[in-house]
Amino acid sequence: MRRALALARGVLYTTTPNPRVGCVIVRDGQVLGEGATQPPGGPHAEIRALRDATERGHSVEGATLYVTLEPCSHHGRTPPCVDAVLAARPARVVVAMGDPNPQVNGRGLAQLRAAGIAVDVGVCVDEALELNPGFVARMQRGTPWTWLKLAASLDGRSALHNGMSQWITGPEARADGHHWRARSCVVLTGMGTVLADDPQLNVREVTTTRPPRKAVVDARYAIPENARLLDGSEVLVFTARSDPAKAERLARRNVQTILMPGDQPQRVDLDGMMRWFGEHDVNEVHVEAGAGLSGALLSAGCVDELLVYLAPMLLGDAAGMVRMPMIDHLDGAQRFEFTDFTRVGADARLRARVAARWQALRQGLDGAPR
Amino acid sequence: MRRALALARGVLYTTTPNPRVGCVIVRDGQVLGEGATQPPGGPHAEIRALRDATERGHSVEGATLYVTLEPCSHHGRTPPCVDAVLAARPARVVVAMGDPNPQVNGRGLAQLRAAGIAVDVGVCVDEALELNPGFVARMQRGTPWTWLKLAASLDGRSALHNGMSQWITGPEARADGHHWRARSCVVLTGMGTVLADDPQLNVREVTTTRPPRKAVVDARYAIPENARLLDGSEVLVFTARSDPAKAERLARRNVQTILMPGDQPQRVDLDGMMRWFGEHDVNEVHVEAGAGLSGALLSAGCVDELLVYLAPMLLGDAAGMVRMPMIDHLDGAQRFEFTDFTRVGADARLRARVAARWQALRQGLDGAPR
Repeated sequence: MRRALALARGVLYTTTPNPRVGCVIVRDGQVLGEGATQPPGGPHAEIRALRDATERGHSVEGATLYVTLEPCSHHGRTPPCVDAVLAARPARVVVAMGDPNPQVNGRGLAQLRAAGIAVDVGVCVDEALELNPGFVARMQRGTPWTWLKLAASLDGRSALHNGMSQWITGPEARADGHHWRARSCVVLTGMGTVLADDPQLNVREVTTTRPPRKAVVDARYAIPENARLLDGSEVLVFTARSDPAKAERLARRNVQTILMPGDQPQRVDLDGMMRWFGEHDVNEVHVEAGAGLSGALLSAGCVDELLVYLAPMLLGDAAGMVRMPMIDHLDGAQRFEFTDFTRVGADARLRARVAARWQALRQGLDGAPR
Repeated sequence: MRRALALARGVLYTTTPNPRVGCVIVRDGQVLGEGATQPPGGPHAEIRALRDATERGHSVEGATLYVTLEPCSHHGRTPPCVDAVLAARPARVVVAMGDPNPQVNGRGLAQLRAAGIAVDVGVCVDEALELNPGFVARMQRGTPWTWLKLAASLDGRSALHNGMSQWITGPEARADGHHWRARSCVVLTGMGTVLADDPQLNVREVTTTRPPRKAVVDARYAIPENARLLDGSEVLVFTARSDPAKAERLARRNVQTILMPGDQPQRVDLDGMMRWFGEHDVNEVHVEAGAGLSGALLSAGCVDELLVYLAPMLLGDAAGMVRMPMIDHLDGAQRFEFTDFTRVGADARLRARVAARWQALRQGLDGAPR
């Protein structure tokens, strides 16, 4: 299963909206075939592994098939993998996590078991979920898995009082950030950042054949038409103000304008935006925004995970990382659970997530009843 | 040497102002004797190890003696260890770090070499220095090694706008903080903290026979005479205002008042305070103060190391960790180097130090010419 997980990690940047899946077929300690999910429309991991075994001249009959996700049992862009697995007649199938779609969960496994194949579920389920939290979130709750990237000094300052913010963290942290952009389906920012930094918001530092879409929260629809991020790649602008003429002009440049007004004037409905993402094949959202949008997303409960880069410096009086309403008691704090500390160049990278949301995704994936 | 370092770690809370030292005597892979420095006035590590070998019935002649610090060659509270080592006639002495006192550095080793004993220096020098940065700093530069303990949310907020700060970090982080208090010679705070929290400032959570002294920076000499930290234990108050009557009253309660006015009115000379510490057997200072004194010590260049506990929560608009003058450029930031990330309960502990100061301490300790 470790090998299957490693294969899935190898396609981190290419499979979405499909999940990243790896598959290894083994008999008597010998690998007969292996594979990982190909880009959308291409074969899934099980099919690749079965073909690999055939190409190597091996029959899979009686072997054990390890796969990081329950084989699909429905017709999508490709035929159901479970049929191909049944035809190959392995003796045993070991699955890291069940299909997260509540409608299909366990159906593929039931078909395998009905054919007399031994099935184990829940082996390395946490590692498997780490690879596909967005796919699971979209299937289970209809919204993507969203992480907020923050970069600051050790005392939580992301810019000096004069706005200077480049570069508090070092080049290695920025390169690491591009890996997270590359695995996401959408890189999201706010108008404050567009006006202050005019970012390209594309993926550099990492080679990817599937760049994420760019998205901007722009309540007043004030995005300058010469902004650098409007480079012909697919851009989504979420706004609270209708301007059909501007929308028409931007549409010709591959920019889709989505009118999504919030409860309050001049605000975008952030929850609605997340549901829109869920309906439009967006598994993972990478937020890289200023303190305003970052705080608004946190306050709206739209952030599942934090990706925080801290530089080993203190800045004292300077701008904070997130702008949120003052609270009177610690009960009002946004709480997370640390998952990982890593040194990245001279900086520290701390990851933390909302524990209850992770547990909700995980529930049932290990084959236990929901 | 690893064993000798572990023995030294075992006396972390008891030897100061003497350094923590461990010693292991080995022949043909067999440990003949071992020991660590006893509390002041008691035998040093080498003496303990030599006695241990004798008690076990071993002669040390021709053996190898591993010691984490160059054996002392001067009469202090105890006779020079180098004489005892010479008398025991080992064939080889392996030393982690040389004596940091520039006046005596290498003298002990020279005596050993003159007696025909093979001497190696610089084995695990970094680990040895980690055990005694304060002793080395006091010997080399005349001031203690000072770390600043900070506790905050992940976005660097140490208190809510209404002052509420207990408890952002969890019980494990607080207990870990008491280990750092216990190893220090002085626990230092400011009047803001005394007035806001009325802390005891003593060591709990760790058993120690040698509690550190307490010290308060109190420029206006406003310390309430019923403050909880004035519990009969030794307290130092650094002030800029003379009040002989109050000093007299406090002296009867084991409080020493040190008049140390700074350049500016109502300010304590923090540099002068550090030199005072160096002259009064203080190796390590643990600062646990509010944003005001923390920022002032940082700005005065009095902080060598940071000990930062971050809770996995975001607070948004709330009080910062350190108060320092605004800067216009990142060149003005206080810069450190991360040395360690650890999870402590639900929190993260990040250690960072001023790289140049560490290098200055380390220089020459490995036997290379300074």
